[in-house]
Amino acid sequence: MQSIRVRTSRRTQMLEVTQEVQRVVTALGIKAGTCFLYVPHTTAGVLLNEHADPDVATDAEGALDRLVPAAGPYRHVEGNSDSHVKTMLVGTSQIVFVEDGKLVLGRWQGIFFAEFDGPRDRHLYVKVAPDHV
Amino acid sequence: MQSIRVRTSRRTQMLEVTQEVQRVVTALGIKAGTCFLYVPHTTAGVLLNEHADPDVATDAEGALDRLVPAAGPYRHVEGNSDSHVKTMLVGTSQIVFVEDGKLVLGRWQGIFFAEFDGPRDRHLYVKVAPDHV
Amino acid sequence: MQSIRVRTSRRTQMLEVTQEVQRVVTALGIKAGTCFLYVPHTTAGVLLNEHADPDVATDAEGALDRLVPAAGPYRHVEGNSDSHVKTMLVGTSQIVFVEDGKLVLGRWQGIFFAEFDGPRDRHLYVKVAPDHV
Repeated sequence: MQSIRVRTSRRTQMLEVTQEVQRVVTALGIKAGTCFLYVPHTTAGVLLNEHADPDVATDAEGALDRLVPAAGPYRHVEGNSDSHVKTMLVGTSQIVFVEDGKLVLGRWQGIFFAEFDGPRDRHLYVKVAPDHV
Repeated sequence: MQSIRVRTSRRTQMLEVTQEVQRVVTALGIKAGTCFLYVPHTTAGVLLNEHADPDVATDAEGALDRLVPAAGPYRHVEGNSDSHVKTMLVGTSQIVFVEDGKLVLGRWQGIFFAEFDGPRDRHLYVKVAPDHV
Repeated sequence: MQSIRVRTSRRTQMLEVTQEVQRVVTALGIKAGTCFLYVPHTTAGVLLNEHADPDVATDAEGALDRLVPAAGPYRHVEGNSDSHVKTMLVGTSQIVFVEDGKLVLGRWQGIFFAEFDGPRDRHLYVKVAPDHV
């Protein structure tokens, strides 16, 4: 298991990490396999979506903030219950295939660390399971 | 990694693909393992839910469209920011176990390709990792 | 594949199952690997989030019930279309890494069975794929 350090700068932020993940895959030297991504936090997740137009990430940040309002009613005293719920919706793990040593991403796809309670120092765990031959 | 071609017919559409995925598993001849499903698109995902009553899929299509409105405020000029957000919520990958050469699905479960910006020609990637013996 | 029996007591309920999953990992004796969690139901899922403060789970139950209202318009006659949609949002599978025979969870993370149409007797499937050496 490898760990990527991520530094976020806003409360809700879709931060692209595709190149960081590819670097881990390349360093492992695995040509064909399955890459597992995992976020060990409770107010941040990981997702795949469009990286070609950064407006998509911006729109998603706004849409998720409107979807799960920061104002409750909530009991949790830290004031970030909405961050926990957004994390549950987006999820803390993702799968991407690897072929020829490269992440198999669609034309518009990138990997995003989904921060919902930043700015913070975060970690993204990565493991690549090689295919059976 | 195998690829299934999917043809959707509506903008938001839960299209069942259970049999197509089972055919891939059967063709691979793997008796026990883990099936990974992956969608290489940014406005479509994959999910598991009830296939016994088609009204569930219809209700889900309506509920997701009400949950993430097509009308923003959004910046992305293609007019499908809601499709991107729905994809983030549903997810682009899923896991299903395989035993005796069959997908281990609950009694009511089916696999659905979740189209959020159709109609389009799409792909669903499938890989089955055999269990270690 | 192992199966954990879960008994839920409310319609919407985040029920922590971290210890039950760790017991399965321990019994399998796998020191390093990837743990796959799978829910074979259509109105319940599985997620990872904070278990330190039980108010987070309570807040999430309320937030998800407000997000997807029980009152439609829905066609499905069983009156649980909202339960199906919540399941699609949370998801039916999750991944957690295993190192030194332990689930690699963040400081605040626990594994929750996410009931959306309880109370019911449920199952959570668990498989641990050992790392290649």
